[in-house]
Parts: sequence; C-alpha cells; structure tokens
Amino acid sequence: MIISYSGGLDSTVLLYKYANQIKLAVSFYYGSKHNDQEIKYAQFNCSKLNIRHLIINLDFISEHFKSSLLKDGGDIPKEEYNIDNLKSTVVPFRNGIILSILAGIAESNNINKILIANHSGDHAVYPDCREEFIINMSNAIKSGTFNNVEIFAPFTNITKRDIALIGKELNIDFSQTYSCYEGDAIHCGKCATCLERKQALYGFDTTKYKS
Amino acid sequence: MIISYSGGLDSTVLLYKYANQIKLAVSFYYGSKHNDQEIKYAQFNCSKLNIRHLIINLDFISEHFKSSLLKDGGDIPKEEYNIDNLKSTVVPFRNGIILSILAGIAESNNINKILIANHSGDHAVYPDCREEFIINMSNAIKSGTFNNVEIFAPFTNITKRDIALIGKELNIDFSQTYSCYEGDAIHCGKCATCLERKQALYGFDTTKYKS
Repeated sequence: MIISYSGGLDSTVLLYKYANQIKLAVSFYYGSKHNDQEIKYAQFNCSKLNIRHLIINLDFISEHFKSSLLKDGGDIPKEEYNIDNLKSTVVPFRNGIILSILAGIAESNNINKILIANHSGDHAVYPDCREEFIINMSNAIKSGTFNNVEIFAPFTNITKRDIALIGKELNIDFSQTYSCYEGDAIHCGKCATCLERKQALYGFDTTKYKS
Repeated sequence: MIISYSGGLDSTVLLYKYANQIKLAVSFYYGSKHNDQEIKYAQFNCSKLNIRHLIINLDFISEHFKSSLLKDGGDIPKEEYNIDNLKSTVVPFRNGIILSILAGIAESNNINKILIANHSGDHAVYPDCREEFIINMSNAIKSGTFNNVEIFAPFTNITKRDIALIGKELNIDFSQTYSCYEGDAIHCGKCATCLERKQALYGFDTTKYKS
C-alpha cells in the first residue's frame, strides 16, 4: 500500500494502523501555511516506523490556485467555525490531485492500493473528502491503470473523534502530529482545525468550546 | 473551457475547433523526451489564437515514475509498433494527473468544462485514454468540485485520421504541431507516434508502411 501522509492527526493514525502493510508514504508540499510544520512530523513518524517517505513539491498549486489555506491566500477563518467561511480553506480538488499522483507512483512501483485518511467531519465543507468522490475517484484510477489500483479510505464514515480513539488504542504520541491551519510552531488553538483537534482528543463539543 | 494542450496534432485540432470557447490552455512539462519541442508549438498556436497559456512543471514525474517516454527512461520502441512494446511508453496515470490539476485550476477560475484530445487509437495501449476512464474521471471531478466541473473529450471514439481531417477542414498548419516521441527538432519518422501521424495526415495504413 501507498499512503497519502500529511503528518496531521488523521493520517498519522492511518499510518500507524496499517504500518506493516505500507511500502511507501508520500507527503505533498503545496504551499499551505502549515506545510512546513506538518512535514517535520511526517518525517519523524515515517522514520520511527521505518517506512520509506517521499516529499513531492506541487509548486503549481500556490501559483495558480485560490485558497486561504495557501501562504498568499489571505486570512484563515478563526473561532467562527461554519461552513460558509470554511469554504475559503478549500484547495480546489486537492485530494483528486494527490490521489492521481499516488496512482501513478503506485503503478510505477507495483503497488495496487492507495490509503487516504479523509473522514466524515470534512464532508460538509470539502467535496473531495466525501464518500461519493472517493468511490468515483477509485473507479477512475482503477480504469486508468494496468494494475487496477484502488483507493482504501477506511475513515470515510467515522469522525475525527473516532480516529483519535483508534490512535489512543495504538498508543500514538499525538504531540508528534500537527494540525493547525496557521502553521506556527505552536498550535493557535482557534482555527477550525485546532478546534476539531481538541474535540477529537478530549471529546468535548467544539460548539460549546468556542462560546 | 480549459484545455489540456500539448502542442501535438490531436490537441492542436481540438484547440482550433473550440478556440472561441477556450479561456485557458495548459501544457505540462513532465520530463518526456519530446516535451521541449511540443511546448514550443503549443506556445506558437496559443499566441496565434490569442488564448491564455500556462505551462506547469511536474518534476515529480521524471523523479518517481517509470516510462520509456521520459528522458532517463530508456529507449523508445521503433518501427516494431505493437501493443506490448508500446506499453513501455505509458506514463502511469498521466491523463488522470493532468485532468485533476486542470480540475483544480478550472475551479479556481470559475470554469466548469475541461477539454482533452484523447482518441480511439490510444485505447489499446493507454488505459487512461479509454472512454470508461474518461467517464469515471469526469464523475470523480464532478463530485469533487463545487462547480461540478466536467470533462469534454469529443475525440474519444474517433481516430487520429478523423482528427486530421477535421484539422484540414479548419485549415490548420500541421507543420506547427509536433508528435515525435524522440524529441529531436525533426520528426524521426520511425517511432509509433510518427507512424500514426503519417497515417493520420496522408491516410495510409501504418501496418503496410512499416513492412
């Protein structure tokens, strides 16, 4: 298996859960504010698990795409955590691009399964995290490769809280993962992803937390 | 519309045919032997038609993918033109990667249709040129974007000869297109793509030609 591995909470749990079947982990540098931090943790965990790790630069995204997640893309929405302002953080078709590149690398390395850690909490905002997209994309990749490469997305219908609980069972050190959209060394604690991370790790409701 | 435009015969015909609806043409530099030549012609035709043209570097392909089409990928098969040796020229899931990136650029620019010039002659060798792939990939892109971006691939079920005839009706100057896999300034005349190009332009059967 080949895994799309950012160094965030969700994909780190996926990495540890399937570590003994993963031949290759790939992180993408696409110019997001939090890329530099994330990738450090990705390197740390791959090294700890002795999994081969590639980092791929996608410079064209910061040059030609619009998103507040990107370094020159404007402010990340904070505290007010709702679908409308979170839409600014979407990097258009990012998961489609990542999965396509992984399909090509998988095919070049005789690997026929791609792991990705999309989960149900992302469905409302990010169209390329939804089950319908994952099924369609898997069909596209299967029909466009000789080895019938497929996507395996086991967290699609569970929450980030469920993922954190799986991670706790696996004794993962969550301090060695990074989630904040702001990209500073210390998590800001206020952006959507920080709120989600706290909810996932401590189990409380972010709607209460923010008020 | 946004078009995947290489500077080859097929996509040049597509560019001219839909020129008045195309807002953006994108060429990809992925380290193939013939990329440098192709892109010169792509620039020429976009400039002639006054169509905005982007060139996107995909350095990761030459670093991590295997194909004889790539600069360090070994010899291109010549004269013996059959499915088995042509498979070495496949760049794994190249069209999937290109279409995904175009989907992201389309979404960033409020464009909802992607044009690509895959045709029936490529079906036997290249899985990501077949109708099944195009339909699945279009569904994936549609479900993974806010604007329901779709693929329009009007040459999927016609031959390269048919495409050349459309180009002749449009009075396209084919000397301003490039097809050879070898990538020299003058077409080699012997690789699979040169044979196909001659068949398309002059209408004779390449199986007779090669003997």
